[in-house]
Amino acid sequence: MNIRLTIEYDGEPFFGWQRQEGLPTVQGEIERALAKILGEPVTLYGASRTDTGVHARGQVANFHATAPVPPERWAMVLNSYLPPAIRVTDSREVPGRFNARNDACSKVYEYRLLNRARPSALDRRLYHYPWPLDWEGIRRAMPHFVGKKDFRALQAAGATVKTTVRSVSRFDLVPDEDGLFRFVIEGDGFLKQMVRAIVGTLLEVGEGKRDPAAIPSVIESGDRRLAGRTAPGRGLTLVEVSYFEKGAI
Amino acid sequence: MNIRLTIEYDGEPFFGWQRQEGLPTVQGEIERALAKILGEPVTLYGASRTDTGVHARGQVANFHATAPVPPERWAMVLNSYLPPAIRVTDSREVPGRFNARNDACSKVYEYRLLNRARPSALDRRLYHYPWPLDWEGIRRAMPHFVGKKDFRALQAAGATVKTTVRSVSRFDLVPDEDGLFRFVIEGDGFLKQMVRAIVGTLLEVGEGKRDPAAIPSVIESGDRRLAGRTAPGRGLTLVEVSYFEKGAI
Repeated sequence: MNIRLTIEYDGEPFFGWQRQEGLPTVQGEIERALAKILGEPVTLYGASRTDTGVHARGQVANFHATAPVPPERWAMVLNSYLPPAIRVTDSREVPGRFNARNDACSKVYEYRLLNRARPSALDRRLYHYPWPLDWEGIRRAMPHFVGKKDFRALQAAGATVKTTVRSVSRFDLVPDEDGLFRFVIEGDGFLKQMVRAIVGTLLEVGEGKRDPAAIPSVIESGDRRLAGRTAPGRGLTLVEVSYFEKGAI
Repeated sequence: MNIRLTIEYDGEPFFGWQRQEGLPTVQGEIERALAKILGEPVTLYGASRTDTGVHARGQVANFHATAPVPPERWAMVLNSYLPPAIRVTDSREVPGRFNARNDACSKVYEYRLLNRARPSALDRRLYHYPWPLDWEGIRRAMPHFVGKKDFRALQAAGATVKTTVRSVSRFDLVPDEDGLFRFVIEGDGFLKQMVRAIVGTLLEVGEGKRDPAAIPSVIESGDRRLAGRTAPGRGLTLVEVSYFEKGAI
């Protein structure tokens, strides 16, 4: 039986999603729990390979269950084996051919920036930037990242992937309370560290080091060195993954 | 120079506030940072000795600084030595006689209860109670905890203290979004685990195991065994500590 999980996690204690020998990772923790329950090794297919420190509210993954546990029960059963920083929030049966990684057609990420002097210990799912920023300049630069483009200039150095063309369909800035700003970005997929490189480039606009109007030429260059720094992973959260056959799965 | 600190912390990784040999505690971490900075042992006086797992948004503490660091700089200097789960959010000079523990005249605590099926990994500063509760009964029981009373029945077993009379001036229930409920309680002081015992007793009202009208007789009994269970520390946050001489300090 093919089981689809929705997973929420706090990335702080983990070395990212992907299984790594001897290091705590989200995939590693869940696969270990599944192996304990099912008594055999299990492979979990995750929609997004989030980096070290990156969080998720709606990561999606699937695995093939060999035990007759009712599909909706998997969430509770898994949670009793997982650390509190990982919670399965939903589990259901999906058609056998469904693959959470290959079938994803859209992803939403959120980058949370705290722009005030006072730091926070209770909310650490953010990047604390205590100096003033030119938010008007940032707002003017943002639309340049929307559309179907070759985003090679925003990809982590050394990454290899078939094509570096991606479609960004939405990029919003939502000011929250008390100095918190949320960048919400949606696209058909993102290159390695692409969202963090976009936010890092916007920070340099906000610092007055870059002209908003110069963003298109940075993207067109295809040269990672011409874009800005990579913002820290702790500010990034995978919010949602969507699939074509919404009704079916 | 007497320095007053305001401190925010996530209690999850700590064995409470109070220094304990060989265990990570909030007081222990800050005193260790101070000793590194000042090159000598330093005693930190905290307003509340929060228990294992309990959080704080506005813990107050003071210490006597022997180095000529400008008072407002202490927050930033300390934060560079402290783990991310502890942040000093304010530092200022106070009169030499000020003692954060002895001079506190009022404290506000918040208990956060998540009452929905779906758990949360991103917000763990709460007690997840997935079953239905009679919130109307809980609301009817709450006013019985307000006033100047002997709260011995709500004190942790085995605790010793001069007097068990405390004044609770406010006790509100604030429904937040998506199944989150916040109990906000203010008083001149609280006995050991008193807020958690009150919430635990209210949970038993919500489960239909106790009659709201029977609360006064539980309090009057002075018998801990007649009150309800102790709700988990992870739901509790020390929000604010107030002092008489507000203008002066």
